[in-house]
Amino acid sequence: MPFEITVLGSSSALPSYNKFPSAHVINIHERFFLTDCGEGTQIKLRQYKIKVSKINHVFISHLHGDHFFGIFGLISSFNLLGRKNDLHIFSPGDLEKIIYTVIKKNDLKFQLFFHRLNTDTKETVYESKRIKISCFPLNHRIETYGFLFEEKQKEKNIKKELIQKYKLSIKNILAIKTGNDFITKEGICIKNSDLTLPEEKPRSYAYCSDTMYFTQIIQHIKNVDLLYHEATFTEKLKETATITKHSTASDAAKIALQANVGSLLIGHFSSRYKNDTPLYDEAKKIFKNTLIAQDGLIIKIPVQEIKENL
Amino acid sequence: MPFEITVLGSSSALPSYNKFPSAHVINIHERFFLTDCGEGTQIKLRQYKIKVSKINHVFISHLHGDHFFGIFGLISSFNLLGRKNDLHIFSPGDLEKIIYTVIKKNDLKFQLFFHRLNTDTKETVYESKRIKISCFPLNHRIETYGFLFEEKQKEKNIKKELIQKYKLSIKNILAIKTGNDFITKEGICIKNSDLTLPEEKPRSYAYCSDTMYFTQIIQHIKNVDLLYHEATFTEKLKETATITKHSTASDAAKIALQANVGSLLIGHFSSRYKNDTPLYDEAKKIFKNTLIAQDGLIIKIPVQEIKENL
Repeated sequence: MPFEITVLGSSSALPSYNKFPSAHVINIHERFFLTDCGEGTQIKLRQYKIKVSKINHVFISHLHGDHFFGIFGLISSFNLLGRKNDLHIFSPGDLEKIIYTVIKKNDLKFQLFFHRLNTDTKETVYESKRIKISCFPLNHRIETYGFLFEEKQKEKNIKKELIQKYKLSIKNILAIKTGNDFITKEGICIKNSDLTLPEEKPRSYAYCSDTMYFTQIIQHIKNVDLLYHEATFTEKLKETATITKHSTASDAAKIALQANVGSLLIGHFSSRYKNDTPLYDEAKKIFKNTLIAQDGLIIKIPVQEIKENL
Repeated sequence: MPFEITVLGSSSALPSYNKFPSAHVINIHERFFLTDCGEGTQIKLRQYKIKVSKINHVFISHLHGDHFFGIFGLISSFNLLGRKNDLHIFSPGDLEKIIYTVIKKNDLKFQLFFHRLNTDTKETVYESKRIKISCFPLNHRIETYGFLFEEKQKEKNIKKELIQKYKLSIKNILAIKTGNDFITKEGICIKNSDLTLPEEKPRSYAYCSDTMYFTQIIQHIKNVDLLYHEATFTEKLKETATITKHSTASDAAKIALQANVGSLLIGHFSSRYKNDTPLYDEAKKIFKNTLIAQDGLIIKIPVQEIKENL
């Protein structure tokens, strides 16, 4: 079951032909979640051959143009392609009013559902049997949210041959699945880890764009496998970062370090940087597992077993 | 002095990575006029190294998304780049309301001027000493306009040595400049064409997207050097063309033929055509000087002398 992030656009406010504005698509178990939708997102989705019909949820971090100007074209093309499925759009502010001013509601052959984000803490915005998505506030010039994509812990699977061997009842099985050991008739304790198959570690990804250095997010993104954190400037432009409420590469790396994430993905570099190296080097000094967001980059988060069970 | 058209986007409603939605930029004497502004126009302008600061006029043919969804990003980037110059936007419908719902008016550091097109005949929308731009109605599902870009006829230039020779007064000069012959004191008639330098033929370009086959436009685009006319379908899909009020490649070629244009540029092909050849072949059978619009294509209209003067 995939857990895979595709960077559709990695630029900051001024895009170029090689760097489109912000948009990531996250494939979790063949459900596709779009975070941010900068101008040209529909073009990138087509270029990277992502099945747009599988996108039913769009998460917009904030209403600066480079994070949502692609939503109009995306919706229009969905409509032209005969989409029937509902589309759920999560964002702060009144994106519903904006969209229905640009696109006539009556022209749409599918339904849009708007979910207005408005919270000062972490909040679940989507939940299915195996996936949970939350939002949490970032610190930017306008109301902005980060998103956390998490696999839920799967139920434990009991080794089939042991069901027979110990003649486990349904009651026993349910107890073992929730982590209990099993006591045989003879009074022998069989450890839960001996009864069950190795567990898969739930995978997770956090998307944080745009924000200044903001330690309050650390609690929400602790231990994620992959953290995307904006890094608009290097430390040389710390003052500009502070004024515009953006982060430096160092800021992003410090957050990654404190949150103990697996890998850090940085992007949203100011267009003044013709070369990513200074940003990469700056982050890497603080946090070794740093990656650079580039349009078309795909990061697959592999399944890992929980060590206690090995 | 250039008269040059750059195709920024040539797709119909569904863009791809190689074909962005409709947008052309016309460089007339180093003034840049943008016609239509599909999603990604700002990216193409940057890719083709067009000085965006020289664009002060944007002409939107109609309010279907593939012809204007790039205006938001363009305006935002102008703002970010510190633009001070006014920007004039010509379009049917209430684009002002749409733009100011998407972008906060107070955030803009330059002024937008909206010119609402609303005419059932040809109307001049821009005029300078050397350039004239008109709009005229097309026939599409919603209110749509074509645009005609014309150089004005330059004043005649008198051969310098003859001013001396015939001792021409200012009154004589003005009369010759307007086309009169000159009668010497001896009563000899010197023809105007012998007194003046060869004249340059004013160049012209017409942009017609989107429209069904509509012969009423012929009067407005008669004899233009270059006609861009949409050709969404081939004749095999004539019925679809009629229903959607688009043109076939044959329709475009018939208009070109009747209007006696120099060259015909066709584009806005339906995304179902993976290969342009059937559309090209169909048009070429009717109108030989047919060209295919492709993103990045530049057409320079050369200066030609008016033959009577040769």
